[in-house]
Parts: sequence; structure tokens; C-alpha cells
Amino acid sequence: MGDPVHATPKPQIAIVGGGIVSMILALGLTRQNIPVRVYERAAGFREIGAGIAFSACARRCMELVDPAITAALKRCGAVPVSDENDDNDYLRWIDGYNQHRPDDPSYQRPLAQIGGAGFCGCRRDQFLEELAKDLPPGVIEFRKRMESLELGKEGKVVLAFADGTMAEADAVIGCDGIKSSVRKSILGAHHPASNAQYTNNVAYRGLIPMEPAIGALGHWKANNFHHHVGPGAHVTHYPVANHQAINVAVFLSDEKPWSGDGTMVAEGSRDEVEAALHGWHPTVLNLIKLLPEKLTTWGLFDMWEYPAPKYNKGCVCLAGDAAHAASPHHGAGACLGVEDALCLTTLLGQVCKAPTTSARDLTTALEVAFEAFDAVRRRRTQWLVNSSRRVCDLYHQSEWADPNRWTKADTCFEEIRDRSYKIWHFDADEMVEQTLREYKSRLELQRNHDQVQDLRIKDSYVL
Amino acid sequence: MGDPVHATPKPQIAIVGGGIVSMILALGLTRQNIPVRVYERAAGFREIGAGIAFSACARRCMELVDPAITAALKRCGAVPVSDENDDNDYLRWIDGYNQHRPDDPSYQRPLAQIGGAGFCGCRRDQFLEELAKDLPPGVIEFRKRMESLELGKEGKVVLAFADGTMAEADAVIGCDGIKSSVRKSILGAHHPASNAQYTNNVAYRGLIPMEPAIGALGHWKANNFHHHVGPGAHVTHYPVANHQAINVAVFLSDEKPWSGDGTMVAEGSRDEVEAALHGWHPTVLNLIKLLPEKLTTWGLFDMWEYPAPKYNKGCVCLAGDAAHAASPHHGAGACLGVEDALCLTTLLGQVCKAPTTSARDLTTALEVAFEAFDAVRRRRTQWLVNSSRRVCDLYHQSEWADPNRWTKADTCFEEIRDRSYKIWHFDADEMVEQTLREYKSRLELQRNHDQVQDLRIKDSYVL
Repeated sequence: MGDPVHATPKPQIAIVGGGIVSMILALGLTRQNIPVRVYERAAGFREIGAGIAFSACARRCMELVDPAITAALKRCGAVPVSDENDDNDYLRWIDGYNQHRPDDPSYQRPLAQIGGAGFCGCRRDQFLEELAKDLPPGVIEFRKRMESLELGKEGKVVLAFADGTMAEADAVIGCDGIKSSVRKSILGAHHPASNAQYTNNVAYRGLIPMEPAIGALGHWKANNFHHHVGPGAHVTHYPVANHQAINVAVFLSDEKPWSGDGTMVAEGSRDEVEAALHGWHPTVLNLIKLLPEKLTTWGLFDMWEYPAPKYNKGCVCLAGDAAHAASPHHGAGACLGVEDALCLTTLLGQVCKAPTTSARDLTTALEVAFEAFDAVRRRRTQWLVNSSRRVCDLYHQSEWADPNRWTKADTCFEEIRDRSYKIWHFDADEMVEQTLREYKSRLELQRNHDQVQDLRIKDSYVL
Repeated sequence: MGDPVHATPKPQIAIVGGGIVSMILALGLTRQNIPVRVYERAAGFREIGAGIAFSACARRCMELVDPAITAALKRCGAVPVSDENDDNDYLRWIDGYNQHRPDDPSYQRPLAQIGGAGFCGCRRDQFLEELAKDLPPGVIEFRKRMESLELGKEGKVVLAFADGTMAEADAVIGCDGIKSSVRKSILGAHHPASNAQYTNNVAYRGLIPMEPAIGALGHWKANNFHHHVGPGAHVTHYPVANHQAINVAVFLSDEKPWSGDGTMVAEGSRDEVEAALHGWHPTVLNLIKLLPEKLTTWGLFDMWEYPAPKYNKGCVCLAGDAAHAASPHHGAGACLGVEDALCLTTLLGQVCKAPTTSARDLTTALEVAFEAFDAVRRRRTQWLVNSSRRVCDLYHQSEWADPNRWTKADTCFEEIRDRSYKIWHFDADEMVEQTLREYKSRLELQRNHDQVQDLRIKDSYVL
């Protein structure tokens, strides 16, 4: 005679949004036999053919969620973004502004090089397609634009879609990006954090074939990751597509309010980039000349000014950009979204392992899991939002253009290195342990009829 | 028959300035039988009766320089600045502005507490006196105001003093503080880094007996280190003198240029502090009421805007505030000066160990030692100058006063913790190893007739 068998109802999880964090989370839940549905508003994967890079740490998170994810990354042709034959995979910074002559010892020499990110880059759309192949049929539902979330019977959450249909779930996770509808639902449409804010920076992006790129940059720089920094702007490039081309991104400070009407893109031109970079080093200007005449101006938005005060409410939770959209200057937004996915799969795995004999028990366990998620993930992810703004300010220092202040500008790299290492050297395995501890201690407190809120004191800054 | 005996002339070291870094360095050299003289402009130790605190890391550096230094620190009555019975020795931050009622869960609750500094505090003058006792008679010469440094015969440096006397040394180390004459000598009086700049912050300091302090702060806060933060200001206090009193420092943002004419202090008053903190929490205002009516306004200066491009020139070197004066917001200026002293005693010990058969050899060894010092110490110390400005900006965020932005302001503590840990958890023993490596490799290069300058490339950011 064994122990009495507990009914352990598996929670039904709804994920809103069909991006990379969403797919990884869905795979992590499926692997643990947790029923999941992904609701995506578009008719197919919306991701455009842009590149995306994952650090070694993000790939370790993928491995822990499901080894099928790193396999998918390999299948879609991910390659190191820099220094293919060097495990240290350096990022390099160059003075893009000052007019050193080729015979000057400072000519086009790195101001700093920081190694150890282990970035592997791929095309977003190809990675998404590979990830989707590993999900059972029917998990992803397209053309489902979420319009509202309501509390239903027995702790269920009811999702209403624009096509008039509804769906029910025990928990909802908003992976619906910077313009998240789930965030609006839990904060209220008038909460300042319901809308992302303009960072007063714009970006222009383009692909340039390798041969002309080498003409502008030389062989070494064209084939490796570089940031060219200067007053009010920086230019980043790295090889893609098996070194057949380079991806170029130009970032410009912009003091005006964003003009795009409800959208984050506008029509732009190479001429406006050249005008903004007037007086920069010929290497940079020669590269810019290779961009197409017509460009898209990307307004960069983030949640720095008005962060979400909580990532969770009851059985609803936010992850990735929906929770903490950052500007792209660390290239780590998606990496931290993958960390979120690992944290959530760990928590929901725990919810399913514990014996729950009632719907109320299950709701409590899900609420505690999302409280634990907020506690584990908030500081690091808010730090990234702040840090992405900060490094852009350092890249764009006006002091680069002032011979008397150049030495001061050049002191920024110790800080940039520390910030990069904090992102790259994160211990994903320790985060899993911390997540388990947080969930366990909060659940015990909850069961002792204490307030979970009490755990949210800032004392956890204590080592 | 043994090896031929090499003449190993011991270099004569001159230290300009008689402060804490200078005394520690003189003790470290004396312990290694390296002849040293300290030249101080004042008639005796100038340090006023202000307090100073050393982290556990700074005390480890002292121990490595000479265990007599930590013994002197103990003799002068140094005690932990916080949490006497807790090794974690927390610093705490409180919202000093918002008017939470005593029944509000946020009322006077720490926003963050960060532990592990191991700060021990004492009076500057008492510590200096104890240190001086361990130096042989005649090492310190008072009333020696240095006026110029000139190159003498056979690589000697000649110091000329205001009293018309001269002195000769093989190497000169400027430990003469933020207004360093040695810095002016090696950079030139018109170099922008020859004068420190106003940080647009002022400080007021005062001692308050413990009983009235408890009346304002309560027993717990009065007996432990706290920062009260708010828009444009912060107030710091900690117990001193065996918990018989508390030391209070008020820091105010100031948009105007500094009015003090060539001096860094001005007459101030409690009234102007109360006016600046109008609308702050009653706890803070009750504490301010206990300060004397007349106060000194300390203009805070640093080298942030115009850092010294080099800490060394030939056989002359800068250390402590002379090299990298920072604003006081990390409480770590003296701690990093002690690290400098450890680096220099290590290097000069190496210079004396190697067989030098000529004055030219000795000069080369000293020059290489100071190049190594610049390489080892520059990044961390320049980072401190920047970081001290940065944490003050975070403490003084205007967002603390805006209910819609408060959540944003409160995201700063992850960064403040990282910055604090970077200071506190520095590995002094590893720095000694790094110093030995730098010196050795630079000396070898030099002996191979290569240019030492070539080592100064930024590639050393590489892990």
C-alpha cells in the first residue's frame, strides 16, 4: 500500500506574444509536460531579418531550460560575432572622432578591448523558426491579439482576443515586448510605466558586403566587432553571414522629442547620418558612404524613466522586454530575457512538483512563484535598463571632442568593463538555486499565513 | 670564492607632504631599510580633528606594508563605524525626503543596506601621531614648503624649499594632497589638471552628543551608519568616540560656481542647511537642529573634469589625492591612497633588491618602477574619482521627490552595491603580484632597449 495519491492538477499556462523569450519559455514548459499555449497577434512570426547575439551566459541558460534550444541555435547557423578563432571574443572601442594621422601611434588603435562575452549571432527569424519546430503542433496560435485579461472562476484568468474569441489559463505570462498589452492590463492604461519612453537616441542599421567594408575599415576591423565612439554618436559593426557581410549600426543622440506618430520608426536617409557625423574620422565616414541612400530611423525607447513597480500581479507575470525594455547598448536585452525564461521554467516546474489538492492551492502556488520571480529578477533587469542608458552616455561623451577633456573621457572603460562583466559572467546555475530558495521560503511563509509581501524588504541586499 | 659583489646603492627617497599616505609609505620604506625623508610645509601635522575610516581592504594593505601600521591604528582607538557586533558592518540608505507617517510600512525603513566594508574609524590627528612614533627621528622635516623640483647631477632630483634650503633625492613621491605642488611641477602650472575643480557640492560637518542624537534619530539609527537621501542632498551620520557622539555630514548640490577665493572653505550657517532641506522628513530636520548655528561650508573639489594624464614623470611620482583627488562620497579616498602606498613600497623594494652597478641603472629602475605604478594604479583610482561623482548624483536624484519617478530612483542600489563592493573587495595581495609582474616585464623590455611606452597600450584590459 503506497501513500495516498494526491491530485496534482497541471496548471494551464498562457504566454502572450510569440518572440524568442516566449518560444524558449514554451519549450521549457513543454519539456516538463506543463500545458502551454502561445498567443501571437501577427499572422506568423513578426521578427524581421535582423541579427541577434547571445552571450555564453545566455546560451548556458538555454541549455538549462532545454538542450533542444542550443541545438536550434546551432542549426540556424549561429557564429561568433568577433574573433572566430579566439575564445575571448573581444569587443573593441576606437576613437571614431579624432583625426589622428596614419603615422600617429594612436591612429585607429583600440582605446579598450574587453573579452569574454562569447557572443554568437544569428538571424532572429531563422532562430524562431528552428525553435518553433521543436514545439508540439497547436501550441502557437497566430492572429490572436489580446485585448483584455479578466479574473474568471476558480482563480482562472480569461484572455479576450480582438477576434472575439476567449481563452482560459491558470497563469498568464506576458512576453509581448516593449509595447506589452499584458503590462497595460496589470498596471492600468494610465500608469506611466504602461508606455515606454523615448531615450533621445536614434539608430540606423544596414548590411554592407565584406569587400567594400574591407575597403573602408581594413581587413582586421571589418572582420571583427568594433565600436567607434565620439561626441553624440557611436557606430558599431561586426561580421555576419559567414563573413560575407558586416552589420552596421549608427546611434545618434537626439535632443528633440520623438516625431514618429505612435510608431517607433520613421523614414531616414544616409544624408542625415553623414550630417550628424560631420568632422568624424575618415574611416567612419568612408563606412557610412557604403550605406544605402534611404534608411529607416529607429527611435530607441525603453522603460528607464518609468519602470514597472512590479513584474507580477496575482497569476499574471511579465518577462523580457514586457517587464524591462532596455535600450540596445549592451546588446543584452534578449540575453536577460532568456534568464527570465530559465527563472520561470524553474518556478513553474516547482509548482507542478508540489502536491496541490485544490484549485486554491494551485493559485497560491502560482502567485508565490511569480512573487519569487519578481524578487529574483527585478534588480538585475532594472540595472540593465539603467546601465544601457549609462554606457550610451559614456560612448557619446562630448569630452571626446575636447583635447583638454579627452583624458577624462578615456577613463570610462573601467566602468564599461565592469558593466559588461556583470552581464556576461552571471551565474545562471546559482540563479536557479536562488530561485528554488526564494520559492520554497515564500511558500512556507504563505502556508504559515504570513504575508509574502514581508519578504520584499530591501534587506535582501545583505550578502 | 663567491660571486663578485655588486654595489647596490640604496636610493634616497623624498616624500613631499606629511599626511596619512605619506606616513604609511615612509614606514614601508623604512622597514625595508630604504632611506627616506618626508618634507611637510606646516609646523606640525596639519590634520584637523576630523574622523577617517579605513575599510578591511585598506587595513590589509597596511598590514602588508608594515604590521606596525595596523598596530598604530589600534592604539589610536579605531572602532567599527557601524554594527559593532556584526562583522558585516552595514551601511544603510533611508528615504530622507518623503513624509511617510510612523504607521506607514515604509516609515524610516532602509531602502538598502550593504555590508562587508569593515570600516574602522578614528581621528586623523591621533592616527598620524601614532604613525609618526614608529618612524626613526629625523625622517620628518616640518616647515619645508616645496617650491620647485629640478633635475640635478647623475639623475638626482633637487627639491628647493621656500626657506631657501635644498634637498637631493634619487626619487620624489608627491603625497601632498589635492593642491599638490609636485603635480604642478611635473604637469606645468598651466596644465588643467594642475588645479582641482569644484564638484558643485558643498559639505557641512558637525559632532552631536549621543543623547540628543538619539532624541532625533532613535537609538538604533543614532548608533549605526546611515545615509538619508533625497533631491539635491544627502545626510550621513555614524557614531564616533565610543558611541558618546555622532558625526554628521550634510552634502548639498550647489549650482553656483564656488565663491571661496582660493580656499576650499567658507563661513556657513545652520540656517542655510535648514533652508536647503526645507520639506525634508522631520527625522532629518530634527537632527539638523542639533548642529551649531555657525558652521563651516566645505567646498568639495576633485580631479574629475581634468584628470592627470600620467601619475609619473622620470623619477617623480604622485600618490593619493595628489594623483587622483576624489569627492568624499565613497569614503574611500584614503583607502585607495593606502593601496598606492602598498604598490610603491613593493616597487621600491624591488628596485633595491636588483643589483644596480651604476647611477644610470638606478635611475632606470626607479623610472620603470614609477611607470609600473602608473600602469597598476591608474584605472582603479580614476574609476574612484568618477564613481564618487556618480554615487552622489544617485543619492541626490530629483526623482526621489516625484511620486511618479520614485520607483526609478529606487533602482539605483544595485549599482551602488556593485560600486561599493569594487572598493571593499579589492584583492591587495593580488595587486602586489600584479605589481611585481609589471615591474619585471617592463624592466626586461627596458633592458632589451625596447620602449617601455609600448606596454602602455590599452590591451591590458584583456582578461
